[in-house]
Amino acid sequence: MDLRPIGVFDSGLGGLTCVKRLRELMPGEDIIYLGDTGRVPYGGRSRETIIKYARQDIAFLRRHDIKAVVAACGTVSTNGLEEIAGDYAIPVLGVAAAAARAAVNATRSGRIGLIGTKASIRSTAYDEKILRLMPEARIVKKACPLFVPIVEDGRIGDGEPVLELVAHQYLEDLRRAGVDTLILGCTHYPLIAGTIGRLMGPGVTLIDPGAEIAALLRRRLEEEDALADRDRGAYSYFVTDSAEDFAQTASLFLGFRVEGAVSRVSLEDR
Amino acid sequence: MDLRPIGVFDSGLGGLTCVKRLRELMPGEDIIYLGDTGRVPYGGRSRETIIKYARQDIAFLRRHDIKAVVAACGTVSTNGLEEIAGDYAIPVLGVAAAAARAAVNATRSGRIGLIGTKASIRSTAYDEKILRLMPEARIVKKACPLFVPIVEDGRIGDGEPVLELVAHQYLEDLRRAGVDTLILGCTHYPLIAGTIGRLMGPGVTLIDPGAEIAALLRRRLEEEDALADRDRGAYSYFVTDSAEDFAQTASLFLGFRVEGAVSRVSLEDR
Repeated sequence: MDLRPIGVFDSGLGGLTCVKRLRELMPGEDIIYLGDTGRVPYGGRSRETIIKYARQDIAFLRRHDIKAVVAACGTVSTNGLEEIAGDYAIPVLGVAAAAARAAVNATRSGRIGLIGTKASIRSTAYDEKILRLMPEARIVKKACPLFVPIVEDGRIGDGEPVLELVAHQYLEDLRRAGVDTLILGCTHYPLIAGTIGRLMGPGVTLIDPGAEIAALLRRRLEEEDALADRDRGAYSYFVTDSAEDFAQTASLFLGFRVEGAVSRVSLEDR
Repeated sequence: MDLRPIGVFDSGLGGLTCVKRLRELMPGEDIIYLGDTGRVPYGGRSRETIIKYARQDIAFLRRHDIKAVVAACGTVSTNGLEEIAGDYAIPVLGVAAAAARAAVNATRSGRIGLIGTKASIRSTAYDEKILRLMPEARIVKKACPLFVPIVEDGRIGDGEPVLELVAHQYLEDLRRAGVDTLILGCTHYPLIAGTIGRLMGPGVTLIDPGAEIAALLRRRLEEEDALADRDRGAYSYFVTDSAEDFAQTASLFLGFRVEGAVSRVSLEDR
């Protein structure tokens, strides 16, 4: 048993959808979450900037003696994470690799859809990961830049008119391409999975990368006998801008009430 | 005549709508533009962070021996700009003060509407500026957080369905409140002024803060005999993230082709 915490980071608070999945599968683990809210969103930044920020995020988490790092951020995990993961003595896992494997396992037709931020879609990281496992796969990608602001504006109810209109437009190409599996390649999308699933139809399997990385990490910790086998772990949250309003926004993504400490930290000065 | 350049800054490229107005009114001026694209958007940040960033932006511009600073950013000009403006030996003007004065001059009913980012609307800076000039004014405010991502996604044509739906929802309260003047309190909004104006109706005067600050600055430079009285000034652009794709996005906001030099700079390290 290894009681050291798991470190999770994201550009903002969306990565808490991943924390939700980690808690469901591994309730005994301590979790340290870093949301780089002072520099959110990473989605529109250059690759070089994204890598610099990811290194700073990981360096901060590592000061807490963690046993593994999860990059909950779709943008980071498709823009250079694998390049830098080898630089650390502990596992550094990105949501993209876990989701790619799950999509390959789920598809029957080999037609896999991917939606995400502009930076995630521009990157070929998902394509490479999928094609390595399934060279005959056909990947259909669509950037959905309005989904994040729509979710952050709280317009997430099924049938909400703006969400409905935008989702209908974004998903049309994917429907027409006949994908049978769709990767929700951004932390915010699980919150609108109901609408996405309904518009895509019952024959399409949605892949939630947060759920997949939680399953992957659990297997890995079990193999290494490093799972924290106890009832309930403790949670600490760190943000890089004001921690005001954190609890309210965070519970939206977490699906449970924030109880651990919330602190504001500075990464730039290090 | 004072041939030193005018410095203009914004959190991103939206402030170029203000540069467009400056060029229309003062074609002979040299302009140095700083877009803090590495840290955009300021709209969701804390007041303290916004002030810190504004100081860094002004410090960068001042290294170029400028004669005046224009804060084209609605968020900055409603979150602490006046507090720090006195710290500089040259004029530091924000769009909010100029727009508030123009709105007071334009209104007949005293009912003034304001739309902007969450931070601009949360701030009472506009209210204070307007009420100082017109204590009986009634100010109706509405945060429109989806307008910026909609503009940046290029959905700006009049009649574009997502813009139409969102604008209809946002503007409903303002229409019902019977405002006769509406301040476009964010750099991006002039690009959708056609839709906003049509939905508000012909009896409502739209105030473009970029146009107002250009008029204010021109008057001030004339009074001080500091206007650059020549045919055409030179433009330099600085950004804090990748300068790739700058020309394309910039020309959308500028309304003319980018000809000056574009450079990437770092503010954080100073």
